Parts: sequence; C-alpha cells; structure tokens
Amino acid sequence: MSDAPLENPTPAARRGGVSRRGLFGLAGAGVAVAGLGAAAGVLASGEQTPTPAVDTSAPVPFRGPHQAGIVTPAQDRMHFVAFDVTTRDRAELVRLLRDWTAAAERMTAGREAAEGGAVGGPKDAPPADTGEALDLPASALTLTIGFGPSLFDDRFGLAERRPEALIDLPRFPRDDLDPRRGGGDICVQACSNDPQVAVHAIRNLARIGFGKVSVRWSQLGFGRTSATSTSQVTPRNLFGFKDGTNNLKAEDPAALAQHVWVTEGPEWMVGGTYLVARRIRMHIEIWDRTSLAEQEDIVGRAKGSGAPLGQRDEFDQVDPHVRGAGGMPLVADDSHIRLASENLAGARILRRGYNFTDGSDGFGHLDAGLFFVCFNRDSRTQFVPMQRALSTHDRMMEYLEHTGSGHFACPPGLVDGGFWGERLFS
Amino acid sequence: MSDAPLENPTPAARRGGVSRRGLFGLAGAGVAVAGLGAAAGVLASGEQTPTPAVDTSAPVPFRGPHQAGIVTPAQDRMHFVAFDVTTRDRAELVRLLRDWTAAAERMTAGREAAEGGAVGGPKDAPPADTGEALDLPASALTLTIGFGPSLFDDRFGLAERRPEALIDLPRFPRDDLDPRRGGGDICVQACSNDPQVAVHAIRNLARIGFGKVSVRWSQLGFGRTSATSTSQVTPRNLFGFKDGTNNLKAEDPAALAQHVWVTEGPEWMVGGTYLVARRIRMHIEIWDRTSLAEQEDIVGRAKGSGAPLGQRDEFDQVDPHVRGAGGMPLVADDSHIRLASENLAGARILRRGYNFTDGSDGFGHLDAGLFFVCFNRDSRTQFVPMQRALSTHDRMMEYLEHTGSGHFACPPGLVDGGFWGERLFS
Repeated sequence: MSDAPLENPTPAARRGGVSRRGLFGLAGAGVAVAGLGAAAGVLASGEQTPTPAVDTSAPVPFRGPHQAGIVTPAQDRMHFVAFDVTTRDRAELVRLLRDWTAAAERMTAGREAAEGGAVGGPKDAPPADTGEALDLPASALTLTIGFGPSLFDDRFGLAERRPEALIDLPRFPRDDLDPRRGGGDICVQACSNDPQVAVHAIRNLARIGFGKVSVRWSQLGFGRTSATSTSQVTPRNLFGFKDGTNNLKAEDPAALAQHVWVTEGPEWMVGGTYLVARRIRMHIEIWDRTSLAEQEDIVGRAKGSGAPLGQRDEFDQVDPHVRGAGGMPLVADDSHIRLASENLAGARILRRGYNFTDGSDGFGHLDAGLFFVCFNRDSRTQFVPMQRALSTHDRMMEYLEHTGSGHFACPPGLVDGGFWGERLFS
Repeated sequence: MSDAPLENPTPAARRGGVSRRGLFGLAGAGVAVAGLGAAAGVLASGEQTPTPAVDTSAPVPFRGPHQAGIVTPAQDRMHFVAFDVTTRDRAELVRLLRDWTAAAERMTAGREAAEGGAVGGPKDAPPADTGEALDLPASALTLTIGFGPSLFDDRFGLAERRPEALIDLPRFPRDDLDPRRGGGDICVQACSNDPQVAVHAIRNLARIGFGKVSVRWSQLGFGRTSATSTSQVTPRNLFGFKDGTNNLKAEDPAALAQHVWVTEGPEWMVGGTYLVARRIRMHIEIWDRTSLAEQEDIVGRAKGSGAPLGQRDEFDQVDPHVRGAGGMPLVADDSHIRLASENLAGARILRRGYNFTDGSDGFGHLDAGLFFVCFNRDSRTQFVPMQRALSTHDRMMEYLEHTGSGHFACPPGLVDGGFWGERLFS
C-alpha cells in the first residue's frame, strides 16, 4: 500500500513537499537537503528581492560526523523528551537503541517509523507507525540523542564510562526546580518545521520503547529563539528582545571546534557535545509592566534593532565605556549582555532554545517562558560559570524562574550502519 | 520608529510576508486576503502541478457579519484562553472590551497591539506591545470571542440577557473534568499559521486586561484536526485517522445557516454561534497497541484513505448495510462514524479542533490528545445529543478522557466602529 502513488494531492504536496507515503515511490530519486537560502522576500519598503526559496519541508541528513539538530539551522518547532529506562536488561536497552536508530533514520527521511507503517502491515497487528504524520513531509526533522548522568549508575555497567564533564549540575541561586521537569536517563530532542512531525517522532520512539522506557518529562517549544546559522535572522524571545545575537553559527567551524565539539574524555564522546536544557519560566506579566528604558537597561540592547546600547546595528560590538547624557555608562555592569559575555575567559555556548507556553500557572497568568537548550564542549567551564554569573548578578533574574533542568552527553554522529550509543555500549 | 523602512529582510520578509513594523509603511497599499488555493504541488508520482500559492502569512479581515475564526479556513496553530473577570465594575469591563477590540483588530492586521507598539512609545513607560511578534506577518491570525455562562450572574446585570441555549453543559458518562481546565467568563480563540503570532495575541490581551481579568486556563494546539473549507485536505488526529471528513464547510452557506449561525434567541446573539471546547486526553499508548483492524472497526473508516469501511474514497457515503466476508456488517453500529452521524435528527456541527501535547502525565506517558472545538447554533440540540451518544456507546471512548470543558456564546461579527460585546452590553 505504501508504494501506491497517491491519487490526490496531500497537504504535503500542496505545500510543495513530499509526503512520507509518497516517498517510497521516490526512493531512488534522491531528496534535496534543506536549503539555507532565504525565500522570495518582500521588503517593508515594498521592493521585491527575488532570492532562492527555502524548502522547509525537505529532509536533513541523519548520519555524519556530528549528530544533526545541533548546528542544523534551527527549525521552527521542537518536542523534547526525557526518558527513564525501566528495563534492567542491558541487552534489551541496546536492542532498543538499535530499533530507535532505525526508526529515527526513517522518520528524519520523511518515512514511516518502520516497514509496513500505519496501514501497510497485517490487519491483526498494531500498526508499525502511528499515522498522524502520514501526509506530511520530512519537514527538516532532526532527532538528537543524549545520555543523562543517571544512566551511568550500576544498572548497565556504565559507571566507568561516565564522562567527567557529565556532572550533576550544581544548584544555582534562585533555582526553583520541579523534579517532574528535570533529569532523565536519555533525552531526545526532536526539531522540525512542523510540530506534528516532531511530536509524531517522539511519540513513535516512546511507542517503540514501551516496557523498556517511560516518559519522564517532555516539553513542546512553539518558536525558536536562536539562530544557529548566519542564514537565519535572530528571533525574539517572550521578553520581545532579539535573543542570542552573538550565538555560535554553523558557518564558523573553528569556533564550533573550540566551544562545541568534544575532543577528549572518553573515546565514545569524541565528536559529541554536552546538552544543557533549562525550562525558564518568564514572569511576563511583571516584565510587561516595566518601562522600555528599564527593559533595555536590563538586557543591554535596544528592543527594536537589537543593537547594543549606544550602537547602531544588532551585530555591533558592545562598548562598555560608551556613556550617555550625564556621563552615565549606557551598558550597565549587571546587564544581561555583559554578564553573558565577560569574565568568562572567552567561554561561549551554542544556544538552541524555544519559546513555550503551557497553559495557566493556576494564579491567573500564562505559564510561559524559554526552554533554554545549549550545546557546549564542557559544561563545567562554559554553561556553569555563565549561568552562575547570570543567576547571581543578572537583573533579568527578577523576571525569571528556572523550573526544569537536564544535562546530557550527546555522542558524536553515526557512521553507516552504526546506532545510537554504539560506542558507549561497545 | 515604526514607520522606518526595514534595513534587513526580516523572517517575515524571508517568508514572503510583511512584518508588522513594515506594515505601517504599506498602510495605503491594501493587503491581500489569505488565499484559499493550493500551493505549487509535487505529487507523489513526481508530477508537477502548478497551482496558485497560498499566502499563509496574509491577514484575515477582522470585521464582517460573523466573527472570523469560525468558517475561516482552519489555520495550522491555536492558542485558546479562558478568562475570569476580576473587576466588579461593569463600565470597566465594557472599557476593556473596547480596548481589546482595538488591539485585536490591529493584531489581526499584523500590526502591534497599540499605537507606539513595542519600541515607539515613551521610554519611561511600559511598551504598548510586548514585541515578540515584531518581525512576524499577520499569519492569518483570527481572534474569536465568546461569553461563558458564568458571565451572566449578578455581577454585571447580564442575568436577563443569558441565552437559553447557553446552558451549563451536562455531565457526560466518563467525563473526568479538571476544574482548572474548564469554564471561564470570557474565552478568546486565537488561530494563526504561526504559533508565536497566536501566543503574542493572547498574551497582549491578557496584558491589556491586567487587574480586570485573569487567565483561568489556556491551551496551545499545535496541529489543526479539521478542514473548514473544501480547499483544505482533511488532517489527521493523534489516532492517525483523518478526522472530521464530513465537517461543515465554508463553501456551503446553506448548511452553515442551518447548523451554525443563530437566528433567534436574544437579539445580541443573532448572527452568532455557540462554541464548545473539550480537552480530550487520548490514551495513545493503549491505542498504539491495538490492531489496525480493531482501530478501523472502532472508527468505521480505513486508516489510510479515510474511506468509510467498504467504500473507496474518503468522501464516499457510509453504507451501514455493506457486509464483508462471512456476512458481518463492515461498519459496526457502535463505530464512531455511525454514532456521530445517525439518530441525531440531522444535527451537524462545525468542528475546528487541534492536536495538543502538554508534557508528561506523570505516569510515564505523554499527555496528548485533541482539543475539540466546535461551533453550533444550539448546543442543546446539536453538540449535547451527539456527545451523549458518543460518550455512551462509542467504543472509542475506551481510549478517551474528557479533561476540560467550556461553553461560550460567540456574538456575531462587528460592524465598523463596533466592539466585542457591544450588543450584549447596550
């Protein structure tokens, strides 16, 4: 059934993509990799600037030296999950990682989770795919796996293999962590330009893992807050500011080599990276009652352009010495922009977070904020000192509450035939 | 500042849209209404079918005989909120409804919530817009208001104006309603093709309402589950099935007149409609372990094509008499497709729901399902008997749990200069 040509244009086809059922018929044709260019643009002045179209529905390659979903241009939507491993059988866990890898590779290619799929298998068995993404293209889906500190206890004989860098994160000032939103033995970050594709992928991994893992927590992110490529504009967070202007970018491999990719420690992590996730509730109602001047002082940037205070353009360098009327420094010592960049011995991180909103907080406000995700080579010398400086001195902290936290070791990318965690378990 | 031409292409421009700051410069140019056509299609067979492009970023008109967001072709994403009114001052509530209307009209046009916006007002005052949608186009945003039964108590002198049709919904078998996810004096449904635009709109309405209303509950929907126009294909719910094939469609005004638009009852509701919201948790893990045959029996349709069992195409009529091998009826009496359509005296509803996922349920599973939204002319004779039949007999109910519920009277559309609720309060 999966090989039958579709009789009617599907939503995927209408959007110019290729649906996962349709893909079977195109298997030999090769599929374009998601382009990085900008779509045909209409500038505010009314001028047309013809530029190449972005195909936001195309697949992203699953295998390579590094896992996809890290320096991949940040997709628009995210579904992040942390699993507890419930089996005590190491071989069963390894089988699951093999099965997951096969399913992940298929789904990132825009195919169903397993042969037969939602409707092509035997009628008297549960389908091999849940079906809600049947008509949808790959949508730049990436699936990125990480292993949490708790996986390296005595259950699976991995204690000796725990990387020193995979620390239990310290408690930071003003942390208010909810244990139901943190930790986990294994995380999978699904990013896609279609949220249904991301949710479908996580849901099918959970399905395949039934009886071996259980969902500890998950987070949906509706809007990306980071650019990870110079081809992307800097998006805005729920404070209304451009976020992560000075982020590391895919086009700067030297900086990525210095700050993101692991080169030492256990061999199984070489070429990998460490993921830190922080669910940051933003007290947007209080922020919204703060004056524009105060907001800009706290951030250290102009809200409109994103330029550092006293500068013209978003990407201008911060000048801590520039002074305004009356001789007062324009960029305060305790502004976010200075604390996040200075006195950190040049440490940088690759940010890849998403805005979230999760209903009401029960006290008349939206439960909304930033699901912060970053990748770094060693959280002990990058994320931790940065977060310590921010949580101690940042005036923005008055408006923030860290409610969830996770730290995961993301192994390197996969060679042909390899599976998630192969080097860890070999 | 808002009138300055943008120096760089924004994300909106890259997507072929027009950002809200840019819009000021285009005010006289007229803005296209979201098209209903299909985008350039690539069929699974590889054939190219050139068709007109959909502009999913364009605005939808705010005023008209009926509110937008009802028969508007269903946008991809939703943020739904229910407010409690906290002021006891009728005049203050009316002022809020005026202010909300002005902000809603601006935001649906892709503009900032109020003059001055996020960065153009005085520096020493809180901005008039929160800014996170600054670079984003209108994205087909619609904002639809409804008034709940509780608004018609003795606080605002509205008890006499409560429509008889605006009942407190009865308790249905297997309801497991969470009071933190139901009710509310006022609801606003924000639908858009960009979730950040929908969230921005609700957040700004909440901000404007500070001290007068508080957020009772809110729900993000990531994927539409209904087609409300013949130009749209039928999407899939989290059971993997095409949902709402026989939905009422914008192109059938006679059916809408019969089933959706109010013609009697209090004058202020004529041209309006009643909205029912139900947060339906789906036990997807159990469903996923059910055989394909069982799933199709329960639904009464083929999972792949969406055709009624025994038929070929999705839109073929159900034939309850068609029999399979052994003479057994193919479409069971207690299948969803039959219960939802038969013995209801021809009653139909306009469905406009969304898939959701809200993290983990705390028991190792995703908290995911369908945020069911429907519009009907009288819930007493349409939604209620339909839901009673389904909740009593539908085999699908084994996999469902209704966890939230709301019933709201949505007044008709706005004439020029009119505001939300004007006829109710006049």
